[in-house]
Amino acid sequence: MKYAFNTWCYSSFPVWVPAYPIEEVIKRLSGIGYDGIEIGCAAPHAWPYYLNAEKRKEIKELLDKYNIKASSMLPAPGGGPGANPASSITEERNWTVQHYKDVVDLASDLGTPTVLYVAGWYIYGTSQQDAWKYSVDSLTEIAEYAKKKNITICVEPTSSDSNLVQTADDALNMMEQAGQSNIGVMFDTFHVLYRNEVPSDYVYTMGKNLKHIHLSDYNRLAPGQGGMDFLPVMQALKDIDFDGYVTMEVGFSSRSTHPDSVARLSLEHLKGLEKQLK
Amino acid sequence: MKYAFNTWCYSSFPVWVPAYPIEEVIKRLSGIGYDGIEIGCAAPHAWPYYLNAEKRKEIKELLDKYNIKASSMLPAPGGGPGANPASSITEERNWTVQHYKDVVDLASDLGTPTVLYVAGWYIYGTSQQDAWKYSVDSLTEIAEYAKKKNITICVEPTSSDSNLVQTADDALNMMEQAGQSNIGVMFDTFHVLYRNEVPSDYVYTMGKNLKHIHLSDYNRLAPGQGGMDFLPVMQALKDIDFDGYVTMEVGFSSRSTHPDSVARLSLEHLKGLEKQLK
Amino acid sequence: MKYAFNTWCYSSFPVWVPAYPIEEVIKRLSGIGYDGIEIGCAAPHAWPYYLNAEKRKEIKELLDKYNIKASSMLPAPGGGPGANPASSITEERNWTVQHYKDVVDLASDLGTPTVLYVAGWYIYGTSQQDAWKYSVDSLTEIAEYAKKKNITICVEPTSSDSNLVQTADDALNMMEQAGQSNIGVMFDTFHVLYRNEVPSDYVYTMGKNLKHIHLSDYNRLAPGQGGMDFLPVMQALKDIDFDGYVTMEVGFSSRSTHPDSVARLSLEHLKGLEKQLK
Amino acid sequence: MKYAFNTWCYSSFPVWVPAYPIEEVIKRLSGIGYDGIEIGCAAPHAWPYYLNAEKRKEIKELLDKYNIKASSMLPAPGGGPGANPASSITEERNWTVQHYKDVVDLASDLGTPTVLYVAGWYIYGTSQQDAWKYSVDSLTEIAEYAKKKNITICVEPTSSDSNLVQTADDALNMMEQAGQSNIGVMFDTFHVLYRNEVPSDYVYTMGKNLKHIHLSDYNRLAPGQGGMDFLPVMQALKDIDFDGYVTMEVGFSSRSTHPDSVARLSLEHLKGLEKQLK
Repeated sequence: MKYAFNTWCYSSFPVWVPAYPIEEVIKRLSGIGYDGIEIGCAAPHAWPYYLNAEKRKEIKELLDKYNIKASSMLPAPGGGPGANPASSITEERNWTVQHYKDVVDLASDLGTPTVLYVAGWYIYGTSQQDAWKYSVDSLTEIAEYAKKKNITICVEPTSSDSNLVQTADDALNMMEQAGQSNIGVMFDTFHVLYRNEVPSDYVYTMGKNLKHIHLSDYNRLAPGQGGMDFLPVMQALKDIDFDGYVTMEVGFSSRSTHPDSVARLSLEHLKGLEKQLK
Repeated sequence: MKYAFNTWCYSSFPVWVPAYPIEEVIKRLSGIGYDGIEIGCAAPHAWPYYLNAEKRKEIKELLDKYNIKASSMLPAPGGGPGANPASSITEERNWTVQHYKDVVDLASDLGTPTVLYVAGWYIYGTSQQDAWKYSVDSLTEIAEYAKKKNITICVEPTSSDSNLVQTADDALNMMEQAGQSNIGVMFDTFHVLYRNEVPSDYVYTMGKNLKHIHLSDYNRLAPGQGGMDFLPVMQALKDIDFDGYVTMEVGFSSRSTHPDSVARLSLEHLKGLEKQLK
Repeated sequence: MKYAFNTWCYSSFPVWVPAYPIEEVIKRLSGIGYDGIEIGCAAPHAWPYYLNAEKRKEIKELLDKYNIKASSMLPAPGGGPGANPASSITEERNWTVQHYKDVVDLASDLGTPTVLYVAGWYIYGTSQQDAWKYSVDSLTEIAEYAKKKNITICVEPTSSDSNLVQTADDALNMMEQAGQSNIGVMFDTFHVLYRNEVPSDYVYTMGKNLKHIHLSDYNRLAPGQGGMDFLPVMQALKDIDFDGYVTMEVGFSSRSTHPDSVARLSLEHLKGLEKQLK
Repeated sequence: MKYAFNTWCYSSFPVWVPAYPIEEVIKRLSGIGYDGIEIGCAAPHAWPYYLNAEKRKEIKELLDKYNIKASSMLPAPGGGPGANPASSITEERNWTVQHYKDVVDLASDLGTPTVLYVAGWYIYGTSQQDAWKYSVDSLTEIAEYAKKKNITICVEPTSSDSNLVQTADDALNMMEQAGQSNIGVMFDTFHVLYRNEVPSDYVYTMGKNLKHIHLSDYNRLAPGQGGMDFLPVMQALKDIDFDGYVTMEVGFSSRSTHPDSVARLSLEHLKGLEKQLK
């Protein structure tokens, strides 16, 4: 198994502090033993418009030096610009699609093979069907752009935060409707727990289309700290020969988090479970 | 007393749903009995770059029709672009200052007299002093711009989320160092409670410089729902002849919020207390 | 407003005791002041196959004598036979459709204008789309049968228990796809709260298609006992000129319930709120 | 010790989701290491009327292939048809007795030696004595039928859900009054805990008549997850040379259950305790 760690809990998104420069995060995660770093595209780490070519080159060199891959990338949903690809506001949709393309460019510059797609949400007065159609159209355009750069777009159900793509089947449906060969699906155990569903089932249901995964215990705690049993989901990943990065997206929703501890405890717990797999 | 309600809990910031169009929010808050609406400058309500002149005119007319004032405005801190005026990243500071100017323009277009200033935060590797200086410089430039439009900038201590301007005295110091006549201070009871300090003390300490206020009970609950005693802070506002808008900034941190209920219960509680003031 | 009370908490479904004969429940609910009784079609009250013509006539006469209407009826989902109209098991779907027809017959015999439709759920190995199609087909056949008896079928989103029709828009979509003039929609505040959504929004979104409603506070407590603010949903019902029965579906999930108390406290709370409506 | 796992938490009874086809459950429980599977006779697993001869043959072959026994079977009490053998409604009693016979047939077809008997409950207006007599009569008829198929009927006290057979002595009395040689007794630790009694005492009291057992921690949690000390009950089972299946009936009362985890953790805990027995 390859392991990666998402940068939110080292950034100022969505909680403002504590936060660390991206250079510091690369060094720390490498030191803790991660193979990959999932980069959230927000300030102060990687808002694309604050990173010129020179800066990108420096980050890439630092990743190489510390022998850690930029394994995946994702925009920061919500916040000022919204970044809702299902928005009924044309200006927001257009900006969001362009922003995803800019994230794809950044991914390409840092050698990142995967960009996550949060399908958006609908607000009072917009119908679920219209929002769905907007999101399929946005996804199609983004994936076509990403295809030229050999980047895979992964659709993620985000039931806890949104209301559009909520289940494994929703994600698979959206993938199919967008109809591009470089679209896959992923899921986050946190959202599956919010729905009172079973994470290992998502692995088998998504099967060969599962290109990425987020692990989180209840309450965004480190795996092993919140009470979820991670053995079945780890076994399921082995059963389907998952070869992506097992990525932690944890610790970022509370100001009292200690990012290095969260990163280390997550990795220790999962490596311990890996030895018990059949 | 004049009362206003902040739009975050009707928007998709920082929690994505439920959310409502700005037009719907104006109608609802007016119906509930508010005198003012504090507009958070984020999608889907008021990200300045999604609102052209025509759209701004429509919102202004709707405000007039429903007899409710756009009493204040604030940017959405955090999220993708950061919007940290104390950032050590030059690109972020520059964008943030320009963004505040754009918010000031929007405020001017909607007849809004007040824009809030969240002074930012420093991250690992930046010193508190440097961040402070960056923020004073940003504030100065923003206030100079706002002065031409007759808009007051209010410095808010945000201890719960950040680490730079944390107390009443921090806010007053920053106000003085920026040295512009159109800068005042404000505070949010939520942040005062986070510091285990006494909200009514802040009123007397800030005194004539207090130009705005946010009321919130513990856990961002509606005043009266979380256990804080609001009588002293209401009495203090009367004692200093506060003539700004008593503004609720509540309900936005939980997905399970029911915005209309939060808005109504807040207002009922405070109007009830108003009758008890000496 | 007309008020009705669902019989589950007086029956042995899904908790087995305490339970009361249907005759007793009719007398008690009439005495408490309800206009209608929503009859759950399970033993010991109204499993259709235990009620011959004579027995049905007796119940109808008792309803008339106590001046209370059998306002609506619903099958008991789950349990031995499943009653899942979206099941991938043909035998279960067929039985379920026939059972709904038998419930429609019982409704007709008791002068009941409305039968609720729980759209079912999909299990591991069945796709969401297949289940959706099965349920639309089942609903279509049931509604065609009910049309001849002048009975309306109401599609209910049941997010807390199932995984197919979860939102207001899901219910509206299913209604439209089945395409029968005697299909409407309804919702239960309990399921809306489970989704962290806003009940009054469901009223406005469903609008003229809203033919029925279930009120329940958090944890299936009586309205007013669990913390939800029912004023907005009551106001919304008045705003859209809702003329159905405001029906409590409460108290049935706990063995420690006291049915008469739950029925009385619910009614008192809502009648109190009714006086505050604009 | 032989261990078995009850299927409720993989079915849609009494909570509708998550649920799995019976074939999937057989494979999973075998993989986890169980010797037996206790089959709840409800949809989607084993509602007898949805399983024709061919389907039963397929399930039997699957059990053989995966080397796991259908160790026991039980009807789904409550739900639409009630299945209350103590009901004062003649139609319900008759249906229930016939249903038990149909369950006995299914048990026979799958090579299952044991069927559980939930003695029912009485509702307001029926006396305890009448209900008791009804249940003894029902049990007698069921046991006579089962005797011809070499199947044992086990009377279970279910204090938490019902009000008729509540204690070890109630179960023994009913067994004796029915007077059939193929009747035994059993108990579920969950119901014993509900009565604030001591599970190991039940083992010694029931002694040689104890033919089956359900283990569950507090709140239907897996043994070891809820705080009950299972060592005494395990020791007692060894002391009386219990040779039935130690069967978990857990996890089914909450939608948030993860069935595979519950099954695995239960087994690990009890096998660990087994090593400590004298």
